[in-house]
Amino acid sequence: MNVRTSRDPDQLTAAMLAGDRVALARLITLVENRTLRSAEIMSRIYARCGRAAVIGITGPPGAGKSTITSCLIEHLRARDKTVGVVAIDPSSPFTGGSVLGDRIRMQKHFLDPGVFIRSLSTRGSHGGLARAGRDVARLFDAFGKDFVIIETVGVGQTELDIMEVADTVVVVLVPEAGDTIQVMKAGLLEIANVFVVNKADREGATRMRTELEMMLHLKASESAADEWNVPVLLTKAAKGEGTDALLEACLEHAACLSARSGGKRLGRRARGEVLEICEEELMRRLRARAGEDPIAAKLDAVTAGDLDPYQAALDLLGDPAALATLISSNGRD
Amino acid sequence: MNVRTSRDPDQLTAAMLAGDRVALARLITLVENRTLRSAEIMSRIYARCGRAAVIGITGPPGAGKSTITSCLIEHLRARDKTVGVVAIDPSSPFTGGSVLGDRIRMQKHFLDPGVFIRSLSTRGSHGGLARAGRDVARLFDAFGKDFVIIETVGVGQTELDIMEVADTVVVVLVPEAGDTIQVMKAGLLEIANVFVVNKADREGATRMRTELEMMLHLKASESAADEWNVPVLLTKAAKGEGTDALLEACLEHAACLSARSGGKRLGRRARGEVLEICEEELMRRLRARAGEDPIAAKLDAVTAGDLDPYQAALDLLGDPAALATLISSNGRD
Repeated sequence: MNVRTSRDPDQLTAAMLAGDRVALARLITLVENRTLRSAEIMSRIYARCGRAAVIGITGPPGAGKSTITSCLIEHLRARDKTVGVVAIDPSSPFTGGSVLGDRIRMQKHFLDPGVFIRSLSTRGSHGGLARAGRDVARLFDAFGKDFVIIETVGVGQTELDIMEVADTVVVVLVPEAGDTIQVMKAGLLEIANVFVVNKADREGATRMRTELEMMLHLKASESAADEWNVPVLLTKAAKGEGTDALLEACLEHAACLSARSGGKRLGRRARGEVLEICEEELMRRLRARAGEDPIAAKLDAVTAGDLDPYQAALDLLGDPAALATLISSNGRD
Repeated sequence: MNVRTSRDPDQLTAAMLAGDRVALARLITLVENRTLRSAEIMSRIYARCGRAAVIGITGPPGAGKSTITSCLIEHLRARDKTVGVVAIDPSSPFTGGSVLGDRIRMQKHFLDPGVFIRSLSTRGSHGGLARAGRDVARLFDAFGKDFVIIETVGVGQTELDIMEVADTVVVVLVPEAGDTIQVMKAGLLEIANVFVVNKADREGATRMRTELEMMLHLKASESAADEWNVPVLLTKAAKGEGTDALLEACLEHAACLSARSGGKRLGRRARGEVLEICEEELMRRLRARAGEDPIAAKLDAVTAGDLDPYQAALDLLGDPAALATLISSNGRD
């Protein structure tokens, strides 16, 4: 077998679990394509997941997430830990989803065999990017990486969904990015296990920390006793300052988490995942069938202006036979 | 009929199209709930859509989007134009999706009958928030609002999806929010019809404008001739400076758009919408059925650790009879 060309899930997963990096890279590509094969691959490696500590890094564009990720990699490597990085880049027609800046920032890690970096630019259907991000994180986990870092580009609903796979969520902010009420609005207060105010030499950094701490205090007094107090750290990641303390905070949170869950990281969301995987595949089938009747006829009527899109959908949804056709597998994958 | 309590789409849409604000509010609530009734309502009003100019306001948290929205409302009202505002707030367990700050900022418009403001905090299934935002924008359009403004909280994949319903997309940035390469990474360069560098009295505003203009120039030279040149405007929205010019730019873009399309705003995406509406409803049915067999049995096996979530999904997806049950309507809505 040649892992460079194989598409066979059994061969590839066996090679990957034996430590073959090329097989890992191939599997990531297959998983990124989001066919039913993704689920087959993931099912084969699922039992090997749950050992890595997964750190999610999110926050608004420009907060310094890539720089912080780069620093964390450095600190982890200094401690002889291996790292997988998933950079979530919604693809853009213009940039093709990868931007020079990242490459430059991450360059020093690319030649290190203890680090595996992968940018995901899958756009595809609803939820596809979030699921692809989670699956790639698990591939790294199963491969044996000690740590997996997931970094998002922006901060929005999809990004919040992706963070659900992380054990420890780090929210990175910069002092000038507006009042802290924005943090609440974007739903960041709920998901953050660690807050970072980066570019801390800028005006307003200390005030932002105080505000965040007040908000966290209010939140803690509203909910039941939690054994983890969300810290607010100041960093100047471009100079490497404060990032070691950030890693320490992540490690402490991971320890707190495993003490609480007894190490069962994966169980929390497993039921919801079954539904998500079904949804994603049903959407894929629906789209693959859009060129065939009965849906093609409805779409043409909509284009001709004879039918509005809502009524066209209602017609299809009200017809069990049409629906069964639409979501049947066409055998191709 | 009492529009305050009616749930009948026919009665409510008739009252709304006759100018009843209470009926409009009821319809928005029904549409926010994302049942099949949403599609029925939207189908009834679809023919009345396409007259309003829809302006989308997006950008990272804290860039000043709410302040800019408030200024635009003021300028539009000064010109005797009516406005509907959809504020997209992914719901958060802590804030419940609405935050005091907004209310304060928008307060002066709440008593104006020419302005209708609605915050959407639907979270729900994948794509639900984006579709709810579009549907509410259309309800405002059909109601007869001259302008509809859609404002997002953050900037991510869902937010980009929502912007697809806008005729004119305004991307709001602040000078300190990082280098402009972040704009490219978040896919904002592709969707912006107008760029705003807000808080323009801060350091770096002019440099940011120059960088954006360079990037836009590069992009224009790559693609075919476009009749619209994306402007980069400087504003200090908190002082009301520059926002009138922003409105002018939006109006010019709208004029350019109708000259090009001959006024057919809605046609562009109609085919894709049929699929999206089917997807959303299928997801809703799937989730409504999760408590029944065959899916309940699989979910229990996953919880018990006897089955991984991927295999459970594969089992269900490979069984046409199970699938047909899962996506059948249960008649309740």
